[in-house]
Amino acid sequence: MGSTWGNSIRISVFGESHGAGIGVTIDGFPPGVVYDEAFILREMERRAPGRNKQSTARSESDTPRILSGVFDGRTTGTPVCAVIENTNQHSGDYAGLADQPRPGHADYTGMLRYKKCNDPRGGGHFSGRLTAPLVFAGALCKLWLKMQGVLVGSHIQSIAQIQDMPFDDVCVTPAQLEQLRLADYPVQNPRALDAMLAAIEDARLEQDSVGGVIECAAIGVPAGLGSPMMDTVESRLSSILFAVPAVKGVEFGAGFGFAALRGSHANDAFYKDGDVVKTETNNNGGILGGITSGMPLLVRAAIKPTPSISQTQQTLSLSRGTVEQLSIHGRHDPCIVTRAAPVIEAAVAVALADLVREANGYA
Amino acid sequence: MGSTWGNSIRISVFGESHGAGIGVTIDGFPPGVVYDEAFILREMERRAPGRNKQSTARSESDTPRILSGVFDGRTTGTPVCAVIENTNQHSGDYAGLADQPRPGHADYTGMLRYKKCNDPRGGGHFSGRLTAPLVFAGALCKLWLKMQGVLVGSHIQSIAQIQDMPFDDVCVTPAQLEQLRLADYPVQNPRALDAMLAAIEDARLEQDSVGGVIECAAIGVPAGLGSPMMDTVESRLSSILFAVPAVKGVEFGAGFGFAALRGSHANDAFYKDGDVVKTETNNNGGILGGITSGMPLLVRAAIKPTPSISQTQQTLSLSRGTVEQLSIHGRHDPCIVTRAAPVIEAAVAVALADLVREANGYA
Amino acid sequence: MGSTWGNSIRISVFGESHGAGIGVTIDGFPPGVVYDEAFILREMERRAPGRNKQSTARSESDTPRILSGVFDGRTTGTPVCAVIENTNQHSGDYAGLADQPRPGHADYTGMLRYKKCNDPRGGGHFSGRLTAPLVFAGALCKLWLKMQGVLVGSHIQSIAQIQDMPFDDVCVTPAQLEQLRLADYPVQNPRALDAMLAAIEDARLEQDSVGGVIECAAIGVPAGLGSPMMDTVESRLSSILFAVPAVKGVEFGAGFGFAALRGSHANDAFYKDGDVVKTETNNNGGILGGITSGMPLLVRAAIKPTPSISQTQQTLSLSRGTVEQLSIHGRHDPCIVTRAAPVIEAAVAVALADLVREANGYA
Amino acid sequence: MGSTWGNSIRISVFGESHGAGIGVTIDGFPPGVVYDEAFILREMERRAPGRNKQSTARSESDTPRILSGVFDGRTTGTPVCAVIENTNQHSGDYAGLADQPRPGHADYTGMLRYKKCNDPRGGGHFSGRLTAPLVFAGALCKLWLKMQGVLVGSHIQSIAQIQDMPFDDVCVTPAQLEQLRLADYPVQNPRALDAMLAAIEDARLEQDSVGGVIECAAIGVPAGLGSPMMDTVESRLSSILFAVPAVKGVEFGAGFGFAALRGSHANDAFYKDGDVVKTETNNNGGILGGITSGMPLLVRAAIKPTPSISQTQQTLSLSRGTVEQLSIHGRHDPCIVTRAAPVIEAAVAVALADLVREANGYA
Repeated sequence: MGSTWGNSIRISVFGESHGAGIGVTIDGFPPGVVYDEAFILREMERRAPGRNKQSTARSESDTPRILSGVFDGRTTGTPVCAVIENTNQHSGDYAGLADQPRPGHADYTGMLRYKKCNDPRGGGHFSGRLTAPLVFAGALCKLWLKMQGVLVGSHIQSIAQIQDMPFDDVCVTPAQLEQLRLADYPVQNPRALDAMLAAIEDARLEQDSVGGVIECAAIGVPAGLGSPMMDTVESRLSSILFAVPAVKGVEFGAGFGFAALRGSHANDAFYKDGDVVKTETNNNGGILGGITSGMPLLVRAAIKPTPSISQTQQTLSLSRGTVEQLSIHGRHDPCIVTRAAPVIEAAVAVALADLVREANGYA
Repeated sequence: MGSTWGNSIRISVFGESHGAGIGVTIDGFPPGVVYDEAFILREMERRAPGRNKQSTARSESDTPRILSGVFDGRTTGTPVCAVIENTNQHSGDYAGLADQPRPGHADYTGMLRYKKCNDPRGGGHFSGRLTAPLVFAGALCKLWLKMQGVLVGSHIQSIAQIQDMPFDDVCVTPAQLEQLRLADYPVQNPRALDAMLAAIEDARLEQDSVGGVIECAAIGVPAGLGSPMMDTVESRLSSILFAVPAVKGVEFGAGFGFAALRGSHANDAFYKDGDVVKTETNNNGGILGGITSGMPLLVRAAIKPTPSISQTQQTLSLSRGTVEQLSIHGRHDPCIVTRAAPVIEAAVAVALADLVREANGYA
Repeated sequence: MGSTWGNSIRISVFGESHGAGIGVTIDGFPPGVVYDEAFILREMERRAPGRNKQSTARSESDTPRILSGVFDGRTTGTPVCAVIENTNQHSGDYAGLADQPRPGHADYTGMLRYKKCNDPRGGGHFSGRLTAPLVFAGALCKLWLKMQGVLVGSHIQSIAQIQDMPFDDVCVTPAQLEQLRLADYPVQNPRALDAMLAAIEDARLEQDSVGGVIECAAIGVPAGLGSPMMDTVESRLSSILFAVPAVKGVEFGAGFGFAALRGSHANDAFYKDGDVVKTETNNNGGILGGITSGMPLLVRAAIKPTPSISQTQQTLSLSRGTVEQLSIHGRHDPCIVTRAAPVIEAAVAVALADLVREANGYA
Repeated sequence: MGSTWGNSIRISVFGESHGAGIGVTIDGFPPGVVYDEAFILREMERRAPGRNKQSTARSESDTPRILSGVFDGRTTGTPVCAVIENTNQHSGDYAGLADQPRPGHADYTGMLRYKKCNDPRGGGHFSGRLTAPLVFAGALCKLWLKMQGVLVGSHIQSIAQIQDMPFDDVCVTPAQLEQLRLADYPVQNPRALDAMLAAIEDARLEQDSVGGVIECAAIGVPAGLGSPMMDTVESRLSSILFAVPAVKGVEFGAGFGFAALRGSHANDAFYKDGDVVKTETNNNGGILGGITSGMPLLVRAAIKPTPSISQTQQTLSLSRGTVEQLSIHGRHDPCIVTRAAPVIEAAVAVALADLVREANGYA
C-alpha cells in the first residue's frame, strides 16, 4: 500500500513533487469542527520553505484548497479533501537523477519498487514536499483535539549535537506550547538557538547539511487510550512518525536513556494530586503498557541530515554501471530540522485524533 | 483493538499470564512450509525464563500445541493456531496489585482501559509471558523467510551501558547470526558479556534491575520491499517492535546517531559489486525512502529495566488514596534483556514475512 | 488473508474439520460482559448436528473451552479465545477426495489456492464445522448487544420453495424472536414447517439435498449506525454473511423484490410515533444510505443445497484427467438450512456488535 | 469510516454533490499501466446523465483531472488522484430537505450520523453523483485487469420485471462484453429493451420511478483467487457492491434461485477441456468455497427504484413534528438502472483488481 494511515480517522496522501498537485483525503473526521483557516495556514507556513535564509528559497504555493468535507464553515463528517496545486516547479533541475540515484535518497529504491515508472522529478511521491498535506491533516486534527482539551507542541531538541533544554517530563504547559508554535524557530533556550543557527550556516558554507532531533509533547491526553500488545500508543505513533521522510529513530520518555537507568530510578511512582492520579517522574513518557497514563506524552524523533547537498558526491550510473561524480543543483536546505517541528506535531496529532476518536466513538 | 497485527500475514495473540492458556493464530501464512519443531522449540527456549541464575526461576511450560494449520508436517496455508497451556501459576503472589498498581507497569492503565475487568494476576494480558506466542509466530516466519534467503538474528548491544561490539553495517554473515542463535547469551564480545553479567548480578544483589539495547539484523532481504509515506518498512517494523513490552525506543541504521553526522558522511554512496548495487556505508540501515535497499537491515530497540523489583517502592493505594509502600514478592528477572533477543527477532521476522508475502503474493 | 473479520471487534477463526481443534479469538470485545455459559451452549446446540433425524448423526463435541478473556465470570476486554476440540473424527471417510474433488465443494479451489498443502479431510478449513466458532462469537456478541437493547433472531424463510410467513417489516417483537430461539425449528407457520420437513425427507430418501433462505431480524438497533459509500451497513453485513459457507445471495428489506416496485410504493414514508421517527413501511430493511434508520433491520440469505449428496455424481480425477463416478460416503445433512439460522444470526450479531462498538467507542 | 475500500489496492472517495469537487485517490495501483484516456472517458460517459431523454438532463462535467500517479502516460505506482470539478449546480433546488427528509433517501440517517453537519445539498456525500469517481477507479482497474486477461462487463438483467436474456453461465465471450460496452443500453435482447424503455416512459409520465437488476460477468479470472471463511470473493465483491447507492441485493451464480434447486442439479460437475479444469454448469457463479474456479464469475445486483420522484409524497417535518406533503423539484431519472451498468462493473473491477494484486504481489 503506502499512502494511507489510520483506523477511525484515515488519511490518504497523494501527489508528486512536480506533478499537478498534492493533497490529502481525511476519512472519518468528526463533524462540526469549525474550519479555522488562519490556524491551518499558520501551520502550513511553519513547515513552508523560504521563511529564512537557511531554508530553501524555492517558491511554493502551499495554500490548500478544500474540495470537500467542509460546509458552512464546519466539517461535515464526510471525507475532507484538500489540494495544494504545484506551481513554478523547475523540473530541469532534477534531470538525470533516474540514472544517477542520489545517495541517501529514495531514487534507487523507488525505481526498484515501481519498476522505473515512478515520477523521478524532485523525488516524486517521496519528496519532503509531501509533508505539506500531512501538516494540513495534522492542523485539522489539532483543531478537534483542542476541543477535547488535548494540545500538541514541540521544540527542536538538538541540531548538530547542540542541545535545547528538554521538556520537563511532568510539567508542560499550554502557554509554553503556544509560545513554541508562534516562534520563528521552536527552541526553548535562545543561546542554543544561536549555536544551532551558526552550525547550520557552517554546514551551508561547506555545502553540507546537518540533522537533529525534535521533541514533541501532547498534554491533556486522557488516561486510558490505546491497547496492549500489537496496538500500543507507541506502535501507532511510531508508525506514522516513521512515515515522515528522514526520521530514523523514535523514542518515548526516557527512550534509549532507559538503558542507563536502574529500575528503582526508572519506575515512575504513583501519587494523587487532588483527584488525579499522577506519577512523580514520567520516564515512561505518558504511556504505560501501551496505554496513556494521563501524564504528558513525550516522544522524540531523530532526523537525518538533508541528503541533498551541494558538495560533489560519488554515486553509481545505473545504465553505465560505473561510479561517477554527482553534483546536485538547485537550492536545498542545509537543515530540515528547523522546518520539521510542525510535521512531527502533525504526525502525533493525527495519531492522537485517531486514538481519541476510537475511544469516543461517533460522540 | 489491540492484539492483532499484520496485513498479508496477520497474527492474533491471546491469553493472560495466569489464565488457562496463551497462544497465537497466524492467518495468511504460506502453505508448504515444513514445520521444524526442533527449531521452533529452540526459539521458545531462547526466550524462556529459568535458563540461568539471573533470570526468573518461575517454571513455565512453553511447549506450543498446534491446533490447526499444520498437516502432514507442513503448513496448510489456512490459519495456524498454537496454544501454550498455563500450569503451576501461583496467583497468590500477585494479590493486591489491583489496588496498589506497580510503578512502571500496566496495572493502573490496564485497569482504566478495561474498567477494572481485566485479569490482574501477573499482569494478565500485559504480561511479558505474552511474548512467548510472539516468539512462536516469529519462529514460524523465520522458517519461511529462510526459504526466501532471508535470515534474522540479533545480539545484546548493551546492558547497563556496557556495550557489545555492534554489527558491521555493511557485512553481517549467516555464520555470525547462527552463532548468536546458539549462544547462551547472544553477545559478540566475550568481555562485554562478562561485564554485563556482573552488572546484572550487582543489580540483583541490590534488589534492583537494569535495561539495555538489542541490535537486530536481517540479511538477504530483497531490495524494493515496502512503500513510501505511510507504510514504510520503518513504520511496520517499529509498530510491531513497540508491541514488545518494555521497548521504549526504536532506531534504524545510524538512528539517533544521525543527529551527530553531516550529510556528506551520513549519505551512503552507491557502487556495484558484480551485478549487485550496494552502498559503501549503510547508515540508513538497509532502508531508503521507506523501502529496502538490499543492504543489511539494522534496527535497535531500547528495553527499559524490569519494573518489577524486590526493593520496597512507593505507590498509591487507589482505594485509600494514600501513598504506601509496595513490596513485590515472587521471583523477577533483574534483567530481561538477556531473554529479549529472540523476542525482538520474532517481531522483525513477522514484519518481514508480512512484507515479503505482500511483495510475492500467493506465490 | 482469510479468516479474520471486523474493525472495532475483530474475530479470527481457526481450525480444520479433522484437525486437533477449531476455535476463535475475539479481539476488542467489551469488558464486563457476564459470561452466560448456558446461553452460549444453547446457541452452539442450535447449530449442532444430530439434533434430529434429518441432520447428520456425526457426533460432535461442541463445548467451547475458554482459554482467555474471561475472568471472574466476566469478559476482561482483552482477547477472548475459545477452543472446541475435535474428537472421534473418522478421517477414512474422506480419503481420495484430494484427487476427486466433490462437485459444489471447495476441494478443487482449496487445492489450487493452497498448492495442495491444505488439509483435505472433511473439507479442512472450508468445512461447515467452522461455523461453530462463528456461532460462539455471535453468542458472545448477542450477550453484549442485549445490554445495548439490541436483539437478533431469525427464521427459516423457505426450504425447497416452501415459504414460511415472513417477518412483518415494521414490527418484530422480542417475544417472537425468543420463541424462534427456543424452537426446535425456527419456523413461524407450523404448516410450512411440516411441508419443509416432508420435502427434506423426500430429498433424503432420494439421496439428494435441498436449499433455502434464512430471514434474520435485528431490533432495537440504534438509528445512525454505519457510514455512506464504502462502509455501509449492507457492506459489512454482507461481507460476513458471505463468509458463511453455502450462502450465495444476500438481500436487505425488499431486496430483489425492489425490482418489481415503483418508487411511489418502494419509498418508506416518515412519521413520528411519540418522540421516535419511524417509517410506515420498511422496504429498506432498516437501512437508508448505508446507515441504520432505527426500524427493524431485515436481511435474507440464500443457502444452496448441501453439495455432499449420497447419489453417485460425476467428477474429474485430477491425476488421471478422466471423468469418473463419485460416491460420497459418510452421513450428510440433506438440508443444512435447518441448522443455519443460528449461524446467520451469529454473523449479523458480530457485524452489529462491531458497528455499535465503533459508534460507542470504549464506553 | 466510510469512504475507503480495499486491501492491496485501496480507493478513497471524496466529495459532495454540490461541493467544489468530487474525486478518488487510488493507493497501491500497479505501476506501468498506460493511461488510456479515451477508454476512461467512455466509461465515465456510460454512467453520465443526460445521454437520453429518460435520464436526468442535469448538466455535469464529468471529465476527471489527474492530480497525481500518472507520469509520461503511464501509472507511477504511487497514488493516483483524480478530481472532477462540480459546476453549474443549482443548490436552490434542494433547499428545505434538511427539515423534510426525502423518503427512501439518506437525508434523515445522514443527518443523524453527522449531527446535522453534513452537506444536505443534493444528498451531499450520499449523492449518486459519487459513483462517478468509482467509475473512474473501475475504469483504471479494467485497464490493468485487461493486461492480466480479465474482462468485466454487464447487462441490464431486468427493469420493472421485464427480463433480458441472462448470461450463459458457462460461456460469456469478450465480443459479447465489448458489444454491451459500446451499446447505448446494455441489453442483450432488443425486444426486452423496447419493453424496458416503454416501462420507464410510463413511470416518467406518472411521475414515478422503476428499479431493476444488473447482471455482471468477469471472464478470464484466474482460478484460485480469494480465501475461505471471512474473506471470500463473495464477501469482497458484495461489500463494494453494497457501496453503490440503491443496491439492496447481491447474488452469485444461481443465488436466490438455489433455494429451488436440489443438490443433484445445483452441483457443478467437473470435467477437463484440454488442460483446463472446468465445470459443466456454473451455478456457483465461478466461486467455490469463496475462491474463484476459473469459470465465468457471475453476480447480480438489485437496484431499487429512484427514490426521488416528482409525485407528491408524504414525509415528516423534523422541526414541526408533523406529517407534510413533499414535492421534489428538479429533474430526476425515472430509472437509474440504465446508467448503473458501468457502476456495477466498476465495483466488480476494483474488487477483482484488489484480489489479483493480492495474489500477484508487486509483480
